Amino acid sequence: MRFEISTKIDYEALVPSTLLLSVQPFKSLNQNIIQEAFTSEPELKMNELYSIAGEKRFKTIDIPNPGYISLAYKAVIENQVKVIPAQQLDDVTISRMTASALSYLNPSRYCQSDKLYKFAYNKFGKIEHAFQKVMAIREWIYNNVEYSSGYTTPQTSAFDTITEQTGVCRDFAHLGIALCRALTIPARYFTGYAYQLNPQDFHACFEAYLGGYWIIIDATKLVPVNGLIKIATGVDATDTALASIFGNLQFRNMEINTTLLSAKLDYLDYDSTTEGYCYNF
Amino acid sequence: MRFEISTKIDYEALVPSTLLLSVQPFKSLNQNIIQEAFTSEPELKMNELYSIAGEKRFKTIDIPNPGYISLAYKAVIENQVKVIPAQQLDDVTISRMTASALSYLNPSRYCQSDKLYKFAYNKFGKIEHAFQKVMAIREWIYNNVEYSSGYTTPQTSAFDTITEQTGVCRDFAHLGIALCRALTIPARYFTGYAYQLNPQDFHACFEAYLGGYWIIIDATKLVPVNGLIKIATGVDATDTALASIFGNLQFRNMEINTTLLSAKLDYLDYDSTTEGYCYNF
Amino acid sequence: MRFEISTKIDYEALVPSTLLLSVQPFKSLNQNIIQEAFTSEPELKMNELYSIAGEKRFKTIDIPNPGYISLAYKAVIENQVKVIPAQQLDDVTISRMTASALSYLNPSRYCQSDKLYKFAYNKFGKIEHAFQKVMAIREWIYNNVEYSSGYTTPQTSAFDTITEQTGVCRDFAHLGIALCRALTIPARYFTGYAYQLNPQDFHACFEAYLGGYWIIIDATKLVPVNGLIKIATGVDATDTALASIFGNLQFRNMEINTTLLSAKLDYLDYDSTTEGYCYNF
Amino acid sequence: MRFEISTKIDYEALVPSTLLLSVQPFKSLNQNIIQEAFTSEPELKMNELYSIAGEKRFKTIDIPNPGYISLAYKAVIENQVKVIPAQQLDDVTISRMTASALSYLNPSRYCQSDKLYKFAYNKFGKIEHAFQKVMAIREWIYNNVEYSSGYTTPQTSAFDTITEQTGVCRDFAHLGIALCRALTIPARYFTGYAYQLNPQDFHACFEAYLGGYWIIIDATKLVPVNGLIKIATGVDATDTALASIFGNLQFRNMEINTTLLSAKLDYLDYDSTTEGYCYNF
Repeated sequence: MRFEISTKIDYEALVPSTLLLSVQPFKSLNQNIIQEAFTSEPELKMNELYSIAGEKRFKTIDIPNPGYISLAYKAVIENQVKVIPAQQLDDVTISRMTASALSYLNPSRYCQSDKLYKFAYNKFGKIEHAFQKVMAIREWIYNNVEYSSGYTTPQTSAFDTITEQTGVCRDFAHLGIALCRALTIPARYFTGYAYQLNPQDFHACFEAYLGGYWIIIDATKLVPVNGLIKIATGVDATDTALASIFGNLQFRNMEINTTLLSAKLDYLDYDSTTEGYCYNF
Repeated sequence: MRFEISTKIDYEALVPSTLLLSVQPFKSLNQNIIQEAFTSEPELKMNELYSIAGEKRFKTIDIPNPGYISLAYKAVIENQVKVIPAQQLDDVTISRMTASALSYLNPSRYCQSDKLYKFAYNKFGKIEHAFQKVMAIREWIYNNVEYSSGYTTPQTSAFDTITEQTGVCRDFAHLGIALCRALTIPARYFTGYAYQLNPQDFHACFEAYLGGYWIIIDATKLVPVNGLIKIATGVDATDTALASIFGNLQFRNMEINTTLLSAKLDYLDYDSTTEGYCYNF
Repeated sequence: MRFEISTKIDYEALVPSTLLLSVQPFKSLNQNIIQEAFTSEPELKMNELYSIAGEKRFKTIDIPNPGYISLAYKAVIENQVKVIPAQQLDDVTISRMTASALSYLNPSRYCQSDKLYKFAYNKFGKIEHAFQKVMAIREWIYNNVEYSSGYTTPQTSAFDTITEQTGVCRDFAHLGIALCRALTIPARYFTGYAYQLNPQDFHACFEAYLGGYWIIIDATKLVPVNGLIKIATGVDATDTALASIFGNLQFRNMEINTTLLSAKLDYLDYDSTTEGYCYNF
Repeated sequence: MRFEISTKIDYEALVPSTLLLSVQPFKSLNQNIIQEAFTSEPELKMNELYSIAGEKRFKTIDIPNPGYISLAYKAVIENQVKVIPAQQLDDVTISRMTASALSYLNPSRYCQSDKLYKFAYNKFGKIEHAFQKVMAIREWIYNNVEYSSGYTTPQTSAFDTITEQTGVCRDFAHLGIALCRALTIPARYFTGYAYQLNPQDFHACFEAYLGGYWIIIDATKLVPVNGLIKIATGVDATDTALASIFGNLQFRNMEINTTLLSAKLDYLDYDSTTEGYCYNF
């Protein structure tokens, strides 16, 4: 599908600062940047970098003087989601996993899979097929965690969310990742733009490594899965931050927009348990 | 310097299992594997993988039947440490950092730098030169944290160690990394063999990114810095585990040995504040 | 019922020390100490104290010299459990609670009821009768938490146990207390001797304030409820420790025994949902 | 000294609710309530209770209907602080402590003294006299923790504050208590009104049990120590909450006032290390 996305972010720099900004969609075989433009007011020196660990494209922006800055990014992107039948999406044995997939089995800051083995096994361990396990995880999170802002904080982790049972997309994603890893299914954090997310904001969900594919899962069920435009993947929120500030930048305003340019979007089924959707091929 | 290293690990497999074992030194320009041999009793199917994220070389080992297994690894390696004068080891500005170095600024599971900004700034922020900051961090940890096993656990993190003030090499390393990152100095976990470590064991310390170099720092001061043989680097203990077990392997015995083959070791000064030592070039 | 209980504890004092020991059953209207003897080898100066906060009878024991000490306590006690029909055991409105009952509504170190409101309400909030809520809590803990030592530690709290789903009597009790308080039912920790507990050890469970009575609940279901001999109640494990050591006493050995002197014990039903058992009247 | 205090609190009840309000100063030998009046708009049924555990006087207030409620409390109180020379304020040996003092040695929810033994001993253990230890604790907190709101939360504990080094009076008090208990000095939380606190608010500090006296310590040094009017003491913030809400009361407004009615206040020295001030005799 073809989308137009735009992000405007305003800051007030109180001192000379540097900003790392990760708002540009990732380039890959299935996601093409048709055109893009990144401007700033005033004009600022920017550098574009690619992260080898995880997948992230980001800019380092030098802000040499205090004052207001406006950043604007606009792009037309075209992406495809590959549909894969569920029966292909089974466990990959450890000895057949790539080094990259194996790295997403490790516990991490917000995904303490090492403390969830018993919980994950008790709830999902008896389900035979790996894809069905992950579907059950998605359903459990959707049914048991209330989507609500104002409660969780940047310190909230998967271990907390099991009991607090409330959170935002970041928390839903962390819990999904932690439970998958606890069942020896590599899982990673996914951030991106989301068509039809209302109000418009950056969205987070996760990918699980099944049958050799990274299958996208969104336990919030807030948006069509094929309306996602990937910015980055990583171990969890620690390595996929949209903005990292060095110095003192006060956030003033942000506007995000995701528009469909294609004629129509064939909705992929949120609740499907017969096929998985892959953003990486 | 030239070293001979050996590791023998025995397990008892209670069920068919898979083991990821990371005991082979990393190959790089400054660390050459002259010869190596990895054997098992009984003979087991092994696969060698390299991790792109972080730096790690590891084997996936299939253990198809319950029973005792013995793994033995022996190697002759030659490595060099590059000595760099302190004045070159200053802060790298954010906009000049590589994507890889930037990834080691993020907080992580055991290194909660995001909770230590105030502490780090109060204690070390006024020191002008980046290398001297890191030397001060090393000295503070050495003087304030007691090296003692039996107290900390695999759940212990840098935030705990500041107050508990006791730990093993893993905890010393995590605290050093967290404090460096809190001062905007990228830092990463380093595991390896250590000549003269007594009793012989795998050792952990850290590297700080100064002047564009990864400089090795060991706050335990237990071993000569140029007697280290690198196995892996990573964000912290989560991605540098020496063994990851899938199934049920009961640890039975381990023996490690590090012998100097060169005529003699010119000791690099533990306490030097005028030069830094680099394992990556 | 009439019981004989005995406790022998041996320590080795490395330095002059003081020991607070809380092994003597509580005296109340329903629990009578027929006879008791507390001896030590060597002879040591002891003081008996009663705690006003919570309910606890304990000795402060001065150990002026290093060396081995043996403490022996033996007693014959007679107690009764009052059986109260379930329909009397409803919520007490806040404005009708005593100051003492209200103090057991507060969150505490191991019972973080303030973090469990949502969880408790989702699971038990729709049950109408307070006693049935508490029975449901007991059943949920019994069915979902595995009784197993070697996993939890003195730092484990109710919040952990919900997710870790394993623990010992202390952890079962803390979770029961936290869930009751989260439903505005005062609850407190209960320690004591337990007839038929095998192996013999001090046991922990909890009491919930229902219909104006403190009703005893044991989610482990390891022992007959009317085979319990109360030592102390308190907010949680922090104020009901059996031994507090000041100085350096190394634990060497402990033997506990609980024998029935009455002809027989009429078992009260572990699983009863029609009546509650009260140790305090 | 003679003071007039007043508290006005407004809530909006969204549902029928019950409020426990603890704003009335404690009555004791050294603190006399000359006159007091507690009114509400509309008129509400209130019950006055005294807490045996800790020391607290509080009202349970029934709010039977949704709507706005205004509570107003006014009182004239007269209290004295007893000045005790430092040399009398030494350690009390465990075997000489009352059961009540011993109960304030336990670790608690916000005062994890059991995790601070090493830290407390390293920093303060070598100081000989108990009162000087506590003065050193007060000075360390005052010099190392920044008094600043907006950072800490109701979940912040003493263990956090050592490293986060910022907080409000509640956090200063919790840290003081935890460090005292870690040095085997019983300590408890103190809440009250504070003459000259600006802006006017309820204040928290702590008392340490020295020489058999409860000596008041305020590490914030924000107010004259003899301008404090005690409301309650307890183990920490868990049992000294000023308001506990059952139902749904939305806080709308609060005004507190503390006026000196005596001719003048002879300031007791914040920084004194030669005498201690006792509110309990």
